[in-house]
Amino acid sequence: MEIPAQHAAHMARAVELARLGHGTTSPNPVVGCVVLDAGGQVVGEGFHAYAGGPHAEVVALAQAGERARGGTAYVTLEPCDHTGRTAPCSLALLDAGVARVVVAVSDPNPQAAGGAERLRAHGVEVLSGVLAEEAERVNEEWLTLVRLGRPHVTWKFAATLDGRSAAEDGTSKWITSPEARADVHRLRAAADVIMAGIGTVLADDPHLTARPERPHAERTSVERVPLRVVVDSEARTPQTARVLDDAAPTLVAVAADTGTELKADLLRLPRHDGGLDLRALLRELAARGVVSVFLEGGPTLAGAFVAQGLVDRVVAYLAPALLGSGPAALGAAGVCTISELHRLTFDDISPVGPDVRLVARFTPDSDREK
Amino acid sequence: MEIPAQHAAHMARAVELARLGHGTTSPNPVVGCVVLDAGGQVVGEGFHAYAGGPHAEVVALAQAGERARGGTAYVTLEPCDHTGRTAPCSLALLDAGVARVVVAVSDPNPQAAGGAERLRAHGVEVLSGVLAEEAERVNEEWLTLVRLGRPHVTWKFAATLDGRSAAEDGTSKWITSPEARADVHRLRAAADVIMAGIGTVLADDPHLTARPERPHAERTSVERVPLRVVVDSEARTPQTARVLDDAAPTLVAVAADTGTELKADLLRLPRHDGGLDLRALLRELAARGVVSVFLEGGPTLAGAFVAQGLVDRVVAYLAPALLGSGPAALGAAGVCTISELHRLTFDDISPVGPDVRLVARFTPDSDREK
Ligand SMILES: NC(=O)c1ccc[n+]([C@@H]2O[C@H](COP(=O)([O-])OP(=O)(O)OC[C@H]3O[C@@H](n4cnc5c(N)ncnc54)[C@H](OP(=O)(O)O)[C@@H]3O)[C@@H](O)[C@H]2O)c1
Ligand SMILES: NC(=O)c1ccc[n+]([C@@H]2O[C@H](COP(=O)([O-])OP(=O)(O)OC[C@H]3O[C@@H](n4cnc5c(N)ncnc54)[C@H](OP(=O)(O)O)[C@@H]3O)[C@@H](O)[C@H]2O)c1
Repeated sequence: MEIPAQHAAHMARAVELARLGHGTTSPNPVVGCVVLDAGGQVVGEGFHAYAGGPHAEVVALAQAGERARGGTAYVTLEPCDHTGRTAPCSLALLDAGVARVVVAVSDPNPQAAGGAERLRAHGVEVLSGVLAEEAERVNEEWLTLVRLGRPHVTWKFAATLDGRSAAEDGTSKWITSPEARADVHRLRAAADVIMAGIGTVLADDPHLTARPERPHAERTSVERVPLRVVVDSEARTPQTARVLDDAAPTLVAVAADTGTELKADLLRLPRHDGGLDLRALLRELAARGVVSVFLEGGPTLAGAFVAQGLVDRVVAYLAPALLGSGPAALGAAGVCTISELHRLTFDDISPVGPDVRLVARFTPDSDREK
Repeated sequence: MEIPAQHAAHMARAVELARLGHGTTSPNPVVGCVVLDAGGQVVGEGFHAYAGGPHAEVVALAQAGERARGGTAYVTLEPCDHTGRTAPCSLALLDAGVARVVVAVSDPNPQAAGGAERLRAHGVEVLSGVLAEEAERVNEEWLTLVRLGRPHVTWKFAATLDGRSAAEDGTSKWITSPEARADVHRLRAAADVIMAGIGTVLADDPHLTARPERPHAERTSVERVPLRVVVDSEARTPQTARVLDDAAPTLVAVAADTGTELKADLLRLPRHDGGLDLRALLRELAARGVVSVFLEGGPTLAGAFVAQGLVDRVVAYLAPALLGSGPAALGAAGVCTISELHRLTFDDISPVGPDVRLVARFTPDSDREK
C-alpha cells in the first residue's frame, strides 16, 4: 500500500501525542489521536493520559466538535470496541460522523478488537498500518503484555567501559555520573515496577524509588508511584531495609514454602531452578495491572532473566573508565559457547553527561523464550 | 587573546590538511598549511605527507609563488628552524616574504623549536595558539612521543555490551560485525606498530596485518606497512605463527635472559613485574622511529599497559549482545578499590554497522604514569 505523505505526517503527530501518556496509562496502552475536518484542517488532538481517564479519540473529538463530521481521524491504535470504564471509541467516532479512520497498529487484544470492523460496517473508510513501526515502538510495553501475557522488562545496568560494576573489593560509588543517575530516575518514574534481587538489597540497601527532576510543566495531573519488588526466596529482606519504608508500596516475592516473620506485602511463588519462578512472578504482576518492569539487577537476577528470555530491552550506562577486575555487570546468563550468544539490536546511543547510554532491544525474531 | 573569525576558519582548513598526512608521516608530525596573499585570498595549501617529503609550508608556498609576498601563512605546528632532510621552514617563510604567520601549536621539540623567534626577529608578525586544541588532537601521537618520550598507545578491544570478549568455552567468532572489523583494519593501517601479547598469538594465531578496504583515491603515494610486535618473554611464538609470515616485518620482544632458537627479529628487553619491561619496550620502539602503537590485547597485556599508565586512547567496539560469562575484555589493571579507577573521557561515540565504537582518551590531568 502506498501511503500518502499527509497520512504519515498526521500519524507522526498522533504518535507524538501518544508518547505524552507514556508511563502513566498502565494497564492501558498509550494512544494518540488527530482529527481533521472534511477540508483537511486539524481540528482536534488528544491522547490517553491515565487509566480511567478519557481515551485519545474522545479527547480529540470533543475538541473538534461538529467540525469532525465528514473528516478523518488518525489513531495510533485501532479504536476499541468494548465497553470498559468508558464507552467504545468506535461508537464515539461513528457518532461524530467521521468519514475516514486511519489506524497505525491493529489492536492485538481480542477483548478490545473489532473497532475497525464496526466502523467499516457503518460505511466509514478504514486504513490500517500507517507508521505502524513507530506506533508499535511507543506502545511496546503494552503490546508485550498483550502478546506475551507478561509485563515488558527493561534491564538497566551501570558499568565501566570494560563491563564491571564494582572494584575488586566491592566498592562502586560512583562509577557513573549524576547525569546518568538522574536519567535512571526518569526511566524508573515511567515504569510500573522497580525490581531488584535480594543480593542488591543486602549489599546496597537501595531505596528503589523514582526521584525524577522534571520541570513542573512536564508533570501529569496523575502522579503514579512505581511499585517496588524484591526477589527474595528466603525472605531475607531486613525489616529495616529502605525498600520497606513508606515512600512507595513494596512487594517481597518469596518462596511459597518459606516460613517468615517479615512484616511486608508478600507474594508467595513456586521455586524454579534454585530461585523463584520468574515467569510466575511476571504473571502475578501482570494480574495486578503491571505493564512495565524496570529491573535494576544485580548481576545474578539479571542473568536469570536474560537466560530465560524475559528481558525485552537493555539500558546500559557506561562510564569512560576501566577497572580490569571486580564484579561483572551481568552474571551467568545460560551461554556456554558463542553460538548461544544473546543477540540484540541497538536502538539508541546517546551521551549522558560524561557517560554513554546504550539502549538495545531483543529483536522479535531472536529465539529467546527458552 | 580574541581570535578573529577568519583566523579560526583558515586554521581549521590547515588542520584538515594536516589530517591528510595522518598515519604516514612517522617519525614526523602531521602539519597543514594555508597561505593567503596580501589581500586575504587563499593562494596556497599544503600538508606534510611522508617522512623525507616536503614540509607543509614548502608545498603551500610553492603553490603560492610570488603571491605569498606580504601575505599570511597559517600553520598547525610552529615552523621548524632546524635543518634536517629539508631546509628550515622558518627560512622558507622569510624567503617567500610573508608578513604574518599564524600558528596553532608551538613546537614542543627542543631540536625544532625557535621558528617563531627567528620569524619575529626578521619582522614577521607571529600569532600563536589559534585553534590549538584541534591542532593538538590531529597531532596527538607525535606530541605524545615528543612530550613523554614514548610512542602513543591505542588499546583496541571488541566485546559484548557486558564487556566479555569470548564465551565460557573460549569461542569468540564473531562477536562484532564485518563493519567493525573493517574499521579495525583502517585504524591498524594508520599505526606504526600493531602489537599483541603471546597469549593472543598462541590462542588466535592472528596475522596482525592491516588490510584496509580503502577507495583507491584515498591511498597515499607512499604505502607503509605497520611493524608487528609480539610481547613474548620466553620466545614461545611458534616458528609457523602467521605473525612471522612475510606479509610484514615483525619484532618479537623477548627477555634478555631467554635462550631461544626462534628465527625472527628479536628485541631483547629486561624483565619487570613478571613480564617484560613495557617502558623499555616503548623506548626501544621510539628509538626505531615508532610514533604510534595499536595494541590489540589480549586482556593480560592490555591490563599491564593500563596499570602502568601507558595507554593514551581506548577504542572499544561493543556488539549489541550479552554473554554473562567468559573471559573479560580487560584483565587485572592495578585497581583494588574504586578510588583507583582509571578515568577517561569519551571522545567519539559512533555506530559502526550494528555495533558501537566508543573512543575514550586519558585526560592530560589524569594521574596515570604510575
Ligand atoms: N551496576 C549495576 O547497575 C548494579 C545494579 C544492581 C546491583 N548491583 C550490584 O550487584 C550486587 C548484588 O548482586 P547479586 O548478583 O549478588 O544479587 P542480586 O542479583 O541482586 O540477587 C540475587 C538473588 O536473588 C534471588 N533470586 C530469587 N530468585 C531468583 C532467580 N530465579 N534467579 C536468580 N536469583 C534469584 C537469589 O537469592 P535467594 O535464593 O535468597 O532468593 C539470588 O541470590 C551488589 O554488589 C550491587 O551493588 C549493581
Ligand atoms: N576482544 C579482543 O579484542 C581481544 C583481542 C586480543 C585477544 N583477545 C583474546 O585474549 C586471549 C589471550 O589473552 P591473554 O590475556 O591470555 O594473553 P595476552 O594478553 O595476549 O598475552 C599475555 C602474555 O604476554 C606476556 N607478557 C610479556 N610481558 C608482559 C607484561 N609486562 N605484562 C603482561 N603480559 C606480558 C606474558 O607471557 P610471557 O610471560 O610468556 O611473556 C603474558 O602471559 C585470547 O583468547 C584472545 O582471543 C581478545
